[in-house]
This record gives sequence, structure tokens and C-alpha cells, in this order.
Amino acid sequence: MAANEFQIIRDLFAPLATHAGARALADDVAVLEARGALVVTTDAIVEGVHFLADDPIETIAMKALRVNISDLVAKGAKPTAALLTLVWPKDRPSDQIAVFAEALGRDLKHFGVALIGGDTTSTPGPLMVSITAFGEPLGARTPARADAKVGDDVWLVGGEIGSAWLGLQLRSGAMAFDDLRRDRDEELAQAESRALADAMPDYLTLPGHKFDAEAAWLQSAYLSPFVRLECADIVARFANASMDVSDGLVTDAAKMAAASGVAIRISANDIPFSIPAQRWAFTGGDFRKLITGGDDYVVLFTAPREQREAIAAAERDQALRLSRIGWVEAGEGVQVLDATGAAVPIVSAGYSHTLGR
Amino acid sequence: MAANEFQIIRDLFAPLATHAGARALADDVAVLEARGALVVTTDAIVEGVHFLADDPIETIAMKALRVNISDLVAKGAKPTAALLTLVWPKDRPSDQIAVFAEALGRDLKHFGVALIGGDTTSTPGPLMVSITAFGEPLGARTPARADAKVGDDVWLVGGEIGSAWLGLQLRSGAMAFDDLRRDRDEELAQAESRALADAMPDYLTLPGHKFDAEAAWLQSAYLSPFVRLECADIVARFANASMDVSDGLVTDAAKMAAASGVAIRISANDIPFSIPAQRWAFTGGDFRKLITGGDDYVVLFTAPREQREAIAAAERDQALRLSRIGWVEAGEGVQVLDATGAAVPIVSAGYSHTLGR
Repeated sequence: MAANEFQIIRDLFAPLATHAGARALADDVAVLEARGALVVTTDAIVEGVHFLADDPIETIAMKALRVNISDLVAKGAKPTAALLTLVWPKDRPSDQIAVFAEALGRDLKHFGVALIGGDTTSTPGPLMVSITAFGEPLGARTPARADAKVGDDVWLVGGEIGSAWLGLQLRSGAMAFDDLRRDRDEELAQAESRALADAMPDYLTLPGHKFDAEAAWLQSAYLSPFVRLECADIVARFANASMDVSDGLVTDAAKMAAASGVAIRISANDIPFSIPAQRWAFTGGDFRKLITGGDDYVVLFTAPREQREAIAAAERDQALRLSRIGWVEAGEGVQVLDATGAAVPIVSAGYSHTLGR
Repeated sequence: MAANEFQIIRDLFAPLATHAGARALADDVAVLEARGALVVTTDAIVEGVHFLADDPIETIAMKALRVNISDLVAKGAKPTAALLTLVWPKDRPSDQIAVFAEALGRDLKHFGVALIGGDTTSTPGPLMVSITAFGEPLGARTPARADAKVGDDVWLVGGEIGSAWLGLQLRSGAMAFDDLRRDRDEELAQAESRALADAMPDYLTLPGHKFDAEAAWLQSAYLSPFVRLECADIVARFANASMDVSDGLVTDAAKMAAASGVAIRISANDIPFSIPAQRWAFTGGDFRKLITGGDDYVVLFTAPREQREAIAAAERDQALRLSRIGWVEAGEGVQVLDATGAAVPIVSAGYSHTLGR
């Protein structure tokens, strides 16, 4: 049954508005009391473009929030508040809205973010969720893409490359689950499966969506990117340039290189992959798909070489996976180098964004 | 031909980013330096819901911005910055994007607002434009809907009621142009037409969309609501409660009454209508359609009776149309009273928002 917008806001979203300036979502504006810099980002996700129509409504909510949290964290900011624009299809059951709101509420709480306002409307088209997120810089500056310096190391922090792309292949049916299992040792695989299941945070467990632990890990990476707030501290302390990896590692590194007027060199062997992604690549999968596929939502940053020891100490303190994957030199563009130092030929660099016809 | 997202941002939207914190739209976040309160609002418009598929792309851009400017102005805030989320249909010609950007740029300049960031993506569905707008309060407080006091006067400022609803009827074909002309004196009508054409600001003139001046006025009210920044000053100086009228005067006054725990009484004869709307009502049109139809985007506020003279002086100074349309008393709900003081029966109060099925 179609649901009334005012009731939805009052009953489902107003309880998430744990911020005085949100005016309990009962007014037309929110009022933020800002002291100093406020970091702002906005990202929208669209059914059929950024998620699939039959993705769980819980993870659609989580993904919409996290792609924005990811932008803030990658810039060394602590997320504080969010605006939600929910454009709901006329033909999607309205009882999913309560599930959406509950999942969003859980995730807002997990990240310490208050909902301060938004807009809800219906559409004859696909579901669209747009979030604007606000954060406070943890450091004195907010690193730009353009701040990479010749001689910097290139780092990744906060997750793995390619898991989300593999997850999308599994979810869309482009790849079968057995493709991941090729040549695998069953005993070892089961031990790994158990380890992955243990490592998976509770909020990645999807009610009603049970998978093999490996497939679950990959699909979760796609459905609800695993963003860690602790990365913001690393960026604030050490980064020259930084950005989140959302369009594929090679594409995003190329953007950073272009903005900074430098060349970025990446050592393929140093890129962090998940166990199933690594096995897939080692048993015939083309690892270039992993580094050009999108949706990783990890943090790419550069830092002076002198910071290596301090960064290693921070990695131990925060139990974050930090990978030094390359370096910045004079020149332009991105090259990915194999174990012999030869450039890996890469044809298609990442998801191509086009608009209209 | 499909257009590349990065080129569109660089060539069409980056020139609108006249704010250092926007980082020329070449980064993932914007950085706002805020001192004190920041008023924030977000509103989305969807093709087939808030505008028609064949509305001029110029006015779609203008409407998307103005519905947000309207929220800020109605709260006594001066608009300063905006984020744009543009969700562009795969089958809409991409060369319209340049026209959209040009019209948005004109309007941003008109309102003194800088574009500081956003997101662009494609969709298999209808066009959707979402804007988040930021403003600085002109007064010490940002009036809520909930701040109406018993004994206050009820005011409208910044425009007329019902013109946009009539404009929509004309655009959608639900009403013929001749329905507006019933019984009219041709000589008088032509004089009025000339007066309207003179009064119409340049930026309401739509290239390639020429109408009779009356029809143009009404359709412009629907296509590109006529929002005046000067209203913000009136609200900041005088308002107890305030909000913009977007879902119909009666519905929005009811929201204000409910939020404030008071009754609002409106005198039908004191509601400001445009000349063609007035004629339509006086020659058989049901004026209740005008006060329950949406999209007016004028400011509804309450103010203490003691402010009447000061408000009248402000009206003269700023050449704004200020209408004292009613009063606040103890009780609940909204009543619209006719010339004899009898309540006008109103069945359907405004646009009904529902989500999903």
C-alpha cells in the first residue's frame, strides 16, 4: 500500500535525526553550528547503474551512506551529519521503506552520523538515493587530489582492491561461483571460509541473504562497501594527496596524477587483494579486471618517504591494512609494473561515465 | 551523442564554481569555512512528478535551484552556496546539458550563489535534479514552522497564490488558454497583457517559448518560480514562524498551525492572486483550487500585531508585495473565511504525497 510521506518522515526517519539542528525533520531547513572548516560531499546511487534492482534494500541504504562516508574519510574528515534524498519508485512496495530506514539508522549510528534533513519524493523511474554528508577535518588541512609530490610513496588503506568488482560479477550472474573455486584445495578453502566468516563484522551479515563466506565477503564488498573511520586519522596525519578509490584503482590513480602534475607508478605485487580475489587471479583470472573495476571504496594517498616508519606504527596501533603500493615521480600518467619492473598493458581504465545520448 | 562526465564537469559546471572551497569541482569534497550558523536545505525535482518531460531544460534548472532558494529565503537566510546532483536519462540528448548548465549559471549569479560541488550520473529513468543549498541567517534566529504565537498576524510575501497551479493546468493541457479569457474585455486584457510583459523580469523570458503575456506569466510561475531574495530580510526582521508555500497555501498553513499548536484563520479576500487568476476565479473558476494547488513558492510568516507599521514601511522600501491574510488564534487547524466571515468548505487540502505501492 502506498505510504504517506509525512508519516514516513515522522515515524521512520525523524528518530534518526539525533541532532538539535535537525529540528526533528519537522521543519524545512536544518541549522548547523559550524566552527571553522566543514567538509562537504554528495553522491547519488541509482538502481540499474550503481546497484541492482534486487539488491537487498538494507544494503542499498548502507551503500548510499558509505559512498559518502568514504569521500569524507579519504579526506581526513570525521563524518558528523547527513542529508538524505530518497526518490522512491511508484511500483516498489512501500513497506521496504521501513527496512531501508532501519538499516540506514544502524549505519548512521555505526559511523556516528546524525541525519539532519532531506527530501522524499516518488518517481515513475528507478530508485535513487542521494546523500549529502558533512564532516570535520581531523587535521589542519583537507588534502586534495592535486597535492601529490615527486618522491612521495603511494599508499592504500582501509580495504582491498577488486573484491567489489568480483562481487558484482557474482551478483549480476556474469561470473559463476564455481569460477572462484577453480583449482582450490577444499580443506584449505574451508579453513579460509571460516576465517572470513569470523572477520566479517556483524552489520555485514544480511538477514535472509546467506552465502558461502567467500562469496558473501565479495558480494558484501559490492553491496555495502566496508569503510573504516580510522582511515581518516591516517590521512589527516600523513597524507599529501588523497582520494577514495571508487572508479577503479588505475582510473583514480590517473586522476590524482593528472591533478598533481606527476606520474604514479604502482607495483602490482604490492596491491592488496582478498584471498578469493587472489586465488581467482592466480588460477587464470585477469588481475587487470580487479585494478580497473570500480566500487572499492578504499583510500589512496601519498605521503613523504620519511613517514614510512610512523605509518607502520599507526598500522600496528589501529589494526588497519596499510599497503605501500608505489611511488610518485616526475612525468605524467599511471603505470602498473609487474615483478620484473615491466609495465603491464592496460587497455580499459575503469568505468566509463557517460551522460545522455 | 553521449557526453563524457568528466568533460561535462570541467567544461560546463566548473566555471560556475566561483568559490575557493569548491576546488574548481576537481576534487571529491568541498570545504566551507563557516562562522556560526549555516542554514541547510535539500530538495529534488523529478520529471513526471515536479516538472513535465517537455518543459524547457532552462526552466528545469531554474526550478531545481529556486525551490531550494525559496526554503532559505523563507527562513530569513541569505543563500550562499549549492551542491548539484544531476541524474541524466540515458535517452535524453546530452547537448541539453550545456543549456541546463548555462541557465543554472545565470540563476546562480542572479541569486549570488556559488556552485561548490555535486554529482552527475546517468539513469535508465526520468531526469532528476537534486540541489542542496546553504545560507547564512540574516537575523539572530532561524524561524521554525512551530513558532507561531496566538495573536500574531499571518502574512504572505514574495508573490501570488495559484498562478503556478493555473500555469500547470495550461502546460499539461488540463485547461485551455481560452478558459482564462472567459468574459474578458479585450481592450482591458491587452493593456493588462502589456503591463505583465513589462513586469516580467528578463530571466523569465524563455528563448524559443513565446506565449501570450498572461499565459507566459502563469506558466513561468510554474516553470521557474519567482523567488525574491528581499523576502529573507522581511522574515529575519519580523517573523515569529515562517515557511515557504510549496504544497498549497491551505496545506502549508495547516502544517504551521499543527507545528505551533495554534489555529490559523485566513481571510479569502486578502489572499494575493495574479490578475488572470483573479479573473478566472471571478468568472466561474473555483478559487479553492488556487489556494490548495501547489508550487507557489512564496513566504508564509506570522508576526506580532505591533509590527504592522514597520512591515508596511518595509513593503514600501523594498517594493515587495506584502499581504496580511489572516491571524493566529488559540485552537487548531486552518479555516479560510469568506467576506461574511463564514468558513469556506475545503475538501482536498493540497497535493497528497505518497510513496511506493
